Amino acid sequence: MRVVTSEERVETRGHTDILDITPRVQAAVSKAGIADGLAVAFVPGSTASITTIEDEPGLHADLRAALERLAPEGAAYQHDRRWGDGNGYAHVRAAVLGPSVAVPIQGGRLMLGTWQQIVLVDFDNRPRTRRVVIQVIGE
Amino acid sequence: MRVVTSEERVETRGHTDILDITPRVQAAVSKAGIADGLAVAFVPGSTASITTIEDEPGLHADLRAALERLAPEGAAYQHDRRWGDGNGYAHVRAAVLGPSVAVPIQGGRLMLGTWQQIVLVDFDNRPRTRRVVIQVIGE
Amino acid sequence: MRVVTSEERVETRGHTDILDITPRVQAAVSKAGIADGLAVAFVPGSTASITTIEDEPGLHADLRAALERLAPEGAAYQHDRRWGDGNGYAHVRAAVLGPSVAVPIQGGRLMLGTWQQIVLVDFDNRPRTRRVVIQVIGE
Repeated sequence: MRVVTSEERVETRGHTDILDITPRVQAAVSKAGIADGLAVAFVPGSTASITTIEDEPGLHADLRAALERLAPEGAAYQHDRRWGDGNGYAHVRAAVLGPSVAVPIQGGRLMLGTWQQIVLVDFDNRPRTRRVVIQVIGE
Repeated sequence: MRVVTSEERVETRGHTDILDITPRVQAAVSKAGIADGLAVAFVPGSTASITTIEDEPGLHADLRAALERLAPEGAAYQHDRRWGDGNGYAHVRAAVLGPSVAVPIQGGRLMLGTWQQIVLVDFDNRPRTRRVVIQVIGE
Repeated sequence: MRVVTSEERVETRGHTDILDITPRVQAAVSKAGIADGLAVAFVPGSTASITTIEDEPGLHADLRAALERLAPEGAAYQHDRRWGDGNGYAHVRAAVLGPSVAVPIQGGRLMLGTWQQIVLVDFDNRPRTRRVVIQVIGE
C-alpha cells in the first residue's frame, strides 16, 4: 500500500464554471502506478467544489439553474455585507456541494460510469487559477 | 494495510427511489476481514447518489419534496432539450448529492449512528439495475 | 501505511449550528504522526453533517438562509407526522450535505485553503453532544 499526492492547476472563468478534470485524475492514477485503490480529488479553497456529472453544456446550464434556486447570485448575503467580496453565493454553493470526491480504482482505471465525469466547479465571481489536489491510495 | 473492492447489483424503481444498502456494505467489510479502516460506497453513473439518512418512508417523501424544490422533475432542462432523455432533473440532483460516501470502520463494524443508514438514491426516470462499488481500505 | 482512528466530543446548540473542528482534526493528524495521507472526519447520526466553509458569522447566516429554501424548518414533514420528532428538516439537510469530508495531508498538514475550515453542522432542533470520528490513513 502506498499514497501518492500530486497537484494540478486549472484555469477557470468563475460564475459556476464546470470543468472536466477526469483526464488529469486518470493520468495521476496511471503515473502513480496504483492498480487497486482510491483516488481522491480535493480543491483547496471555499468557493469551489468537486463532484461528478455528465459533462455536457445542457447540464452545465441546468446545474446553474438549480443552484440559483438554492443560493441566487443576486440575493443579499451577510458575507458580502461584512466583507464586500460579492461572492457569498459562491461560499454557500461550495459548502453544499463539498470540496472533494472519492472514486475507486480497479485495474488502474477509475471506476466511473460511461457518462460520468469528475468536474471542478468554480463558483467564485471572477476567473481563478485553481489548485486541485489528487491523492491516490492503494497498491 | 490492504484494499478490497467488490460490487453489488441493486434493483431500483427510479424517480428518487431510496434503498438501504447498509447490510451489503457491512457484509463486504466483514468478508474483507478488515477491522480498522474506511469503507467507501460509490455508484458508477450520473443519475444516482449515495448518502446516509434514517431509512424510513416519511423521510423518503421529505427528501423527495426538498429535491423537488431544488430540481423539479417537471421543469424545463437544457439536457432534455438536447438529448431527449427526460432525466435532466436526475443528473442535477445526483451532482448535488454526490456519488459516494465514506464511513470509518472500527472493530470490524461501520461506525454509523443508530438511526443512520447508507442509502443508494436512484433519481433516474425509469427502473434500473445499479452497480454499487464497495471498497474497504484498512488492516 | 497505517490507519489511526480517534473520536472527539463537540457540544452544539442545534438549529444548523456551525462549528469549526479544524484544530481538532489537525491535532489528530499530528498525534497520529502521519505525514502523507488522507484525513476523514465523519459524524455518526442522521441530523448533522461535516463540510468545509469559510468559518465566519456572515456565512453561517447565509448557509442557514439557503437551507431554509431547500428544507424549511417550519414546513410540514412526513417524518414529523409519523414520529413527532419535529426535526424532519434536519434529516433532509443532513442527507443533502452528507456525513463526512476527506482532506489530503502533506508534510503532516491538512491541505486546506487559507479561508477553508472543516465544520460540523448540527441541524437538530435541540442542543446535542456530538461524536466526531477522525480517521487518518497514510504513512
